[in-house]
This record gives sequence, C-alpha cells and structure tokens, in this order.
Amino acid sequence: MREPKLVVIGGDAAGMSAASKVRRTHPEREIVVFEQGEHTSYAACGMPYYIAGEIEGHEKLIARKPEVFREKQNIDVRIQHRVEAIDTNAKTVSVTNLKTGESFDEKWDQLLIATGAAPVRPPITGLKGAKGVFSLSILQTGIDVFTDIETHHPKTAVVVGGGYIGIEMAEALLARGLKVTLIDMAPQVMTTMDSELAEKISSYMKDEGINVMLKEKLSEIECGDNGRVKAVVTEKHRLEADIVILGLGVKPRSELAEMAGIKLGDSGAIAVNSKLETSAVGVWAAGDCAESFHRVSGEQVHIALGTIANKHGAIAGTNISGGDAKFPGVLGTAITKFNRLEIARTGLSEKEAKKLKVAYETATTSSRTRSGYYPGSAEITVKLLVRKASGELLGGQIIGFEGSGKRIDTIAAAITGGLTANDLTYADLSYAPPFSPVWDPVQICARKLV
Amino acid sequence: MREPKLVVIGGDAAGMSAASKVRRTHPEREIVVFEQGEHTSYAACGMPYYIAGEIEGHEKLIARKPEVFREKQNIDVRIQHRVEAIDTNAKTVSVTNLKTGESFDEKWDQLLIATGAAPVRPPITGLKGAKGVFSLSILQTGIDVFTDIETHHPKTAVVVGGGYIGIEMAEALLARGLKVTLIDMAPQVMTTMDSELAEKISSYMKDEGINVMLKEKLSEIECGDNGRVKAVVTEKHRLEADIVILGLGVKPRSELAEMAGIKLGDSGAIAVNSKLETSAVGVWAAGDCAESFHRVSGEQVHIALGTIANKHGAIAGTNISGGDAKFPGVLGTAITKFNRLEIARTGLSEKEAKKLKVAYETATTSSRTRSGYYPGSAEITVKLLVRKASGELLGGQIIGFEGSGKRIDTIAAAITGGLTANDLTYADLSYAPPFSPVWDPVQICARKLV
Repeated sequence: MREPKLVVIGGDAAGMSAASKVRRTHPEREIVVFEQGEHTSYAACGMPYYIAGEIEGHEKLIARKPEVFREKQNIDVRIQHRVEAIDTNAKTVSVTNLKTGESFDEKWDQLLIATGAAPVRPPITGLKGAKGVFSLSILQTGIDVFTDIETHHPKTAVVVGGGYIGIEMAEALLARGLKVTLIDMAPQVMTTMDSELAEKISSYMKDEGINVMLKEKLSEIECGDNGRVKAVVTEKHRLEADIVILGLGVKPRSELAEMAGIKLGDSGAIAVNSKLETSAVGVWAAGDCAESFHRVSGEQVHIALGTIANKHGAIAGTNISGGDAKFPGVLGTAITKFNRLEIARTGLSEKEAKKLKVAYETATTSSRTRSGYYPGSAEITVKLLVRKASGELLGGQIIGFEGSGKRIDTIAAAITGGLTANDLTYADLSYAPPFSPVWDPVQICARKLV
Repeated sequence: MREPKLVVIGGDAAGMSAASKVRRTHPEREIVVFEQGEHTSYAACGMPYYIAGEIEGHEKLIARKPEVFREKQNIDVRIQHRVEAIDTNAKTVSVTNLKTGESFDEKWDQLLIATGAAPVRPPITGLKGAKGVFSLSILQTGIDVFTDIETHHPKTAVVVGGGYIGIEMAEALLARGLKVTLIDMAPQVMTTMDSELAEKISSYMKDEGINVMLKEKLSEIECGDNGRVKAVVTEKHRLEADIVILGLGVKPRSELAEMAGIKLGDSGAIAVNSKLETSAVGVWAAGDCAESFHRVSGEQVHIALGTIANKHGAIAGTNISGGDAKFPGVLGTAITKFNRLEIARTGLSEKEAKKLKVAYETATTSSRTRSGYYPGSAEITVKLLVRKASGELLGGQIIGFEGSGKRIDTIAAAITGGLTANDLTYADLSYAPPFSPVWDPVQICARKLV
C-alpha cells in the first residue's frame, strides 16, 4: 500500500516540528512543505535581541535551513510558495510559486495547516505604505528593522503597544541609543498581567529612560514627502518619530481554513480537538493559527507562542504518523524582560478570574531572590491566585530581578499537578543562600494564602 | 484556665519558627526557649560565604537576636542554657546555666525538642584538641574559622568530605587564596548525586584549581608541637595542611530524647508522625534532630537542612497552638554551587532507586540554559528518573551554569503533583530567548523518556 502523502502549509515551528516527527517514524513517506517566505524554522522570539545588536547576524536565529530539511530529512520544503486555497473534497491545495508566478494544484492524503499568525495592523490614516513603520512577524521583518536602523540612523522611536513585543522592542531600541516612547491605548502595559504589577513594570521602564504613555490611542501615521514616517499621532498627542514599531498583537492566519469550510473557534483561530484534528477529515492544524484548550479556564483560547507551536507540532506529527497523542492544553505561561526586570505569568490573572466569575483569593508578596545577606539578592514580587475554599492554585505572576522569572515554572508545574497553596507552601523546594531565601519567594506568597 | 506553658530546647530555625508561630496565635502563653549557644535564628548555610569574605560580618547571618525575641515577641529566650535531661512524667527539663554553672528544673506542659544536628567527628588519632581543625556547625564555629584565617594566614587547606559543606568550604578557601585539597573516602564527590554527574562536578572543581582526591580515607591528623595541625594523613598519602575543615556529615542530636525514653527512628533521629508528635504525650520534635517522611520512597529519613527545619517549625508551632497541620514530607531536594557550577537534586537518585528495588527508567540530556544564540547561554545537564511503565517522575538531578540549579523546583513541584514524564514534557513552561530554549531543559530530558 502506498503511504499517505503529507502536505504542510507553513514552514516554521509547528509545521517543521510535525514534518520532522513524521519523517522520524516514516522514512519513506512523501512530505511536502509550502512556505511563502524564504526561511524555515527560525526563532522569531529572538528578533528583538538581534535588532538590539546582542546577537550577531540573523543567521543565528535560523534553527534549520530549507536545504537542510531537504537534504538531511528528505522533506520537500518549497519556500516562496504560497498556498491560495484548500479543497478538502478533492484533497488538493492550490499553490502559487512566488518566484515564477506559476500556479499548480498539489494532492494530499493528510494536510497540516500551520500558517501561523499575522501582526494586527489597524486601518488608520497614513499607515499603508509608510516607510520606517514595522510590525515584527516573519524573520524578514526583523532583518528589515535592523537594516533600517543601520541605514537611516533613526534618533527617535515610537513603539505602539505595551505587550511582549512592545516592551522587548522598546528595550532593543533603547539599547541602540534611540529616544524611545512607548504608547498603549490601555491604562497599563502588559495587559496579561494585573494592573498593580503592570504599574511596577512601567515605572521601572520610565526609570530606565522609556517615555511610557498610557491611554493613548493611535490615530494616524504622519509621513514626510519621501514617504518616511515623521510622527505618530494619537487622539491626544503628536509624537515625532524616525522609526515606528507596531506591537498590537497578532491574529491567527485562519483565512485559508475558513475559506475551505473548516471550522474556526470563537477566537477566530482554527478549532481543533486535543489531537489537533480540525473539523475536516485528514486535516490537522497546529501552532499560531490554531486554538488551544486552557487547562484552568476550560475554554478554547488563541495564544500565539513558539513554545506552544513546538508542542502542537510534536503532537500533530505523532498523530499524523498514526500515533495517539493528546495536547493537554495551555496555562497561558509567558515570560519576558525589560532590561534587568524579569516578567512572567501563568494560569489565570485576577482580571481573567473576574471575567470568568471564578471565586478566588489572592495574595501578593515582595521578598528576595536570594538570602538577604547574599550578594546579588534582589527584589521579587509574586502574586498568586487560588480557588476560594479549596485553595487550588489558579494562576501566578512574577516580576523581579535576576532569577525571578523562571520561578513561574514552579507555579506552572504546581497548577498542572493540581496543587493547593498549602501543598506549594510545604513542597520541598530547593534552598541555599546563593539561590533563594529559606522559604522560596513562591512559597512565601503561597503561605500567605494558607 | 491557665494556658499551657511551652518549653523549647534549641533556639535555631525549627525552635524559633515554632515559638514565633505559637506566640502569633497565643499572645499570652508562657514560652521559654533554652539555647546552649550564644545565638538564635542564624543562617548556618551562609557560613561558607561569610568565610569566603563575600558577606561582611557574621552579624548579617543572624536573622533575629535573642533580645529581639524577648522584647518584640515576649519569648523568654535563655542563651547559654544547656538542657541536661527531660523528664516526661514530671514534665520538667533539667537545665544548666553555662554562665553561672547553676542548675535548675523547669516545668512544661508542652515540650518541643529542636536540638539540631552535630557534625560527625571520627575517632581518629590526633583530631582531639587539634588547633586549626574545624567542623562547621553552630555560628560560633564559622566565626572561629574566619578568625583563624585572619590570624594564622594559612596557605594550604585540606577539606575532608566532598558533600555540600565540603564543596562550599573548598570554594570559600579557594576564594581566600588558599591551595585547597579536597579528599573523600567515596569514589565520587556529592554522594547524593549519581556518579556520572558527580564526575562532571569533580572535573570542574579540578579545572578551577581544587586538588580533588577520591577514595582517600582519613586516618590521622598530624599536629606540630604548638598543637596546630601540620598535615592530614590518609591511608595512602600525607597532605600538608595549615587548616583543615571536616565536612563528614551530621548526626541528629537525639541523645536527650533517647535518654528520656522517647522513640528514635532507624536513622537515629527522633521518630515523629506527620504532626511532628514524638512517642511522648505533649512532646514534639522538629528540625535537624527529627526524622521526615520521604514522599517518594515512603521511608522515614533524616535530612538536616534549614528549609526542612523551618517547615517543621511552622507545622509543630501550628499543632502546639491547637491547630491541625500535617507535614507532607520531603523529597530530599537540595541545591548548592561550586564557583559558577550549580548543582541540584530532588527525589530519588538512580543509586537510591536501585537500593529500594524500584523499577525505573532514566534519561540524561545536555542542553542550554537559554536559547543557543542568546548571550550567556550555557550548558545544563538534566537527569530524570521515572517509574517504569507508569512514567511517574521519581527524581531529578541538575548540574550546569547560571540559571540551571533552580530548575530543580520545577521537577520537585512536578513530583509533588504526581506528574509523569509525558505530563512534564507538555506542561506549559515559560520560554523566551534570555531564559530558556523553546523546550525547557527539564522538558528536553522528560521528552527523551516519553
């Protein structure tokens, strides 16, 4: 019997993880990957650090090049090929070769949609075609920002949006010596964090030299005669800018699936079950274009993160290979930093718990990353949420200096294991003066809830 | 009704945590603490870093002084008072005031034994009375070592024992400019770690300038005419030494309890139930003198660590106050470092699993602490043990550079929650290039077991 042919749409984390997984278990199967860009398997999350000049050369961000997939893994990766449509009855995709303009149909027996997500670009005056205005998405846009800085030597920057990309790009541009203003329409930065912690983040950013302006809604991009951005106009202010970064979040690239009659979820991302199967037989979806089950809220959510995309890819690949793997869901865990301040979160925030009408209790404690007397001991703030009455952990947020952020994993593992605040308080976590106070900061917070 | 009078024997972590807990819930109760030394509530684990000169002044290691307990918490702390005997029938302790030589009996209604542990000092020739030979235990011994270095300016040191204290003191003496030899009678350092990881630790220590000699059994301490140590003699070698540190482990100070007819466990430490009650009515034991339930092996073990002592103290204090708290047990979690190499372990080692005849599988992986392209990314080695068939996590060991050690808490929380290797692989742990590769190193190892 002929082995089923796999077509993958999208050659980044989810798509290439799945393709590699299938290749490992099926050395002979035909696997074709269509990627509309020029790169495969690159570390999109590394772009701000490359732009900052901390990583030399964008090549370092590329985990594996298309030719390596082709030569070492016999995966037929075709870059600069855009899939225009999916036909789930005929089991074909219509493809355009962007180099030659040629169009063709490709048959598949199994299809994986891994089309990723696209940055949100609001329909405001002056944005379209404006030079010096960037949204980070694929690797090429990172290279474009880097090249723009090298070529145009911008002095002032406006970063629109105070989420992960926004604060990482504010850090990067500050490191490059620019005068940076960060604006957000919300009353806080980092809306995945609760406001009192976000307040500490923006206060630190200000101390480090960022002009943080909140409740500022972008209304216009003003360009010069040369078509290059001159200023960002909000409803209240006009901010001069030689370069502008838009970090307004992403939306799933789910149009292809939708046009093919494949079901989308309420989030707008492709609906999948725990095996990452879509509503169409023989069609999987994985990564930033697909939904995930949220282990705490029980809802289907859209969270576009590399770590989820890789796990999706591994699970989809296993199932496409005939295995039986289930994706257990996400907690919304995320981590970033601004200069020395580490920022991390997992599970439900207080805001989310309120929206979901979950009865909760919460505590916030400030303590030290190491024993107080040990050199390098620094402040760490931990906030925990537990279910009222049962004490079951629902979520956590951390901000603090060196050694703070990754402590979120202790909380994430505790939530995954169904631990209560009491369980966490008396869990046998590690202690030595260079690493922690006797009660780890997450336990100090948990203990306050007991 | 008169409130019961609490007497605590031992004024360090466990004793003072319990006394403070009782005071918080009972502002009026009579609480008397007898401490034979001069200090209360100090950070014993900080002594090597104080000796290294990284922490200025031993006062910084004292969390709370006796007079503070007396004045702020109305706890009657009596330093330099040694308890000589416990009478569980008469409900008294016999006490000697070491300053005056005076002896007296003190009544109690409730008694907490928190006598700690004492360093093992083997019965070898020349050790007794030898000057310049130290075992770290109470704060005063740390001050003695510091003073000795300042006064005698030793050039060569021999550290006997390659456990936690041994490698921390080797680091400290190296930092002070001494030529350091570390000997251990075992074929590896750090016997709580498996041998292949211990090999990497000793190899790093050698690279950093420590003369590590294994399978060397101490046989004699050789002193000069002035009574000061000249050399350490093993069965194979004679090693010149101006100062000697013994890090041969500790034994529980359980003699008082034993003499009073209170039951000891097989480990020699005081047997307690999960409420930290001893075999005698109205008598609790906590900290380094008491046993703990091991959550993975199910055995009663003796592990002398500050983090356990503090938790014991909190649980005993709650129960003495009339509450109902249970100590859930330990995993044997521990962390330390030698220079930049971080070392951590939790749960069962392979060695322990073999001894317990547990059917296990194991994997060891080397990966990076951060994304490979991110500055400061360094090597980390993770070893995991799971129960065969079920995949349930049994233990983990980590060695690596900055950011490695505290990842043991993710494994400890996962074991506490009963997670399998598959659960850990797909747990939503945090990722961003400055903090982690896309799959966290602990997940890379877990994934190998799936």
